[in-house]
Amino acid sequence: MTLTLHGYWRSGTSYRTRIALNLKGLEYAQVTHDLRKGEQKNAAYTALAPQGLVPALEIGNGVVLPQSVAILEWLEDTHPEPPLLPRDANERAIARAMCATIGSDVHPLNNLRILKYLKNELGQEQAAVDAWARHWIAEGFAALDTMIAAHGAGYAYGATPSLVDCYLVPQVYSAERFGSTLSAYPNLMAAYEKAAAHPAIAAAHPDKQPDAD
Amino acid sequence: MTLTLHGYWRSGTSYRTRIALNLKGLEYAQVTHDLRKGEQKNAAYTALAPQGLVPALEIGNGVVLPQSVAILEWLEDTHPEPPLLPRDANERAIARAMCATIGSDVHPLNNLRILKYLKNELGQEQAAVDAWARHWIAEGFAALDTMIAAHGAGYAYGATPSLVDCYLVPQVYSAERFGSTLSAYPNLMAAYEKAAAHPAIAAAHPDKQPDAD
Repeated sequence: MTLTLHGYWRSGTSYRTRIALNLKGLEYAQVTHDLRKGEQKNAAYTALAPQGLVPALEIGNGVVLPQSVAILEWLEDTHPEPPLLPRDANERAIARAMCATIGSDVHPLNNLRILKYLKNELGQEQAAVDAWARHWIAEGFAALDTMIAAHGAGYAYGATPSLVDCYLVPQVYSAERFGSTLSAYPNLMAAYEKAAAHPAIAAAHPDKQPDAD
Repeated sequence: MTLTLHGYWRSGTSYRTRIALNLKGLEYAQVTHDLRKGEQKNAAYTALAPQGLVPALEIGNGVVLPQSVAILEWLEDTHPEPPLLPRDANERAIARAMCATIGSDVHPLNNLRILKYLKNELGQEQAAVDAWARHWIAEGFAALDTMIAAHGAGYAYGATPSLVDCYLVPQVYSAERFGSTLSAYPNLMAAYEKAAAHPAIAAAHPDKQPDAD
């Protein structure tokens, strides 16, 4: 099976997906779509991924999986080792809830398309747009810091890398770009530092991708 | 096991969770937190759910699961019948991607807390706030209409209710409140009508909840 990841170096959800692929030890080709130029809306790509968003993972036989949340679950379903979710159903639910704290409540608000709408359609200044991003990051990170204190053990959930790290590391990268004050989240930042140093996670960093500026 | 759902009648994610609980045939108690009054930020509730968001599901022994995405997966893990996701991993990924089209790309942008921020912090008029909501609904529904045409068979995914219906039905309810033009999505609306008529789904409607206005 040949895997091809359609993404963009600086996209948080592409970064999230690269981390999971790397943690599973999978080889994959990368096709880039420059979000700044709107390339993800080109017809050749929307034929594969109708929503015109990155990432999408081609898994062979013409099957294309959009949506990073679904791709990460698919990786866990089809490549169970090493596991990125706990075995116990209740623990798995907590880990997935920690993922969703970023995946549902922070990242969707800070996408490039959202920030563009705030500037262009709603006429907001850059400072207000950055404050918007920092606001939702602060709300989510405060909750996640508490959850990492309760459930982390080196990594954000437990003592080994998990899907939570796949969500956390790109969101901290994004928060740094927006100028968030991260010292308020000591448990979260300790887990981030631990995860970011993992070779498979470090290799997924935007600056290390072939399409980086 | 006694299940207690912390929610709010008009919250889309609470509605989503009620549908899944009903489809699984589970009994549950409901505790309401009036989002208009900010009751979800009361200390008694944030002690259970640190993020101060609804829904959260108390599952016994002091375990509280926040985040509807995680709750729905937990229901599928612990109460596999009737299945709400396909058995095949690739099909399951497509169904989850359809869920995420709403769960990640539409609903997070149209939450009450987001709309309040647009009005209060960014000084937007009600008309601009409603247009914002309709914009993201239109983007997501256009993609989902295509996916339902490809993967639906009466219901949004296949011939039986699935997690996709859990996401779809509350989002259409919300779209109607924002004045979206829904005739542009014939496949999506046919699936919605079919699902909304299902007794377990109909029973989850906001107007039928004990805390409804």
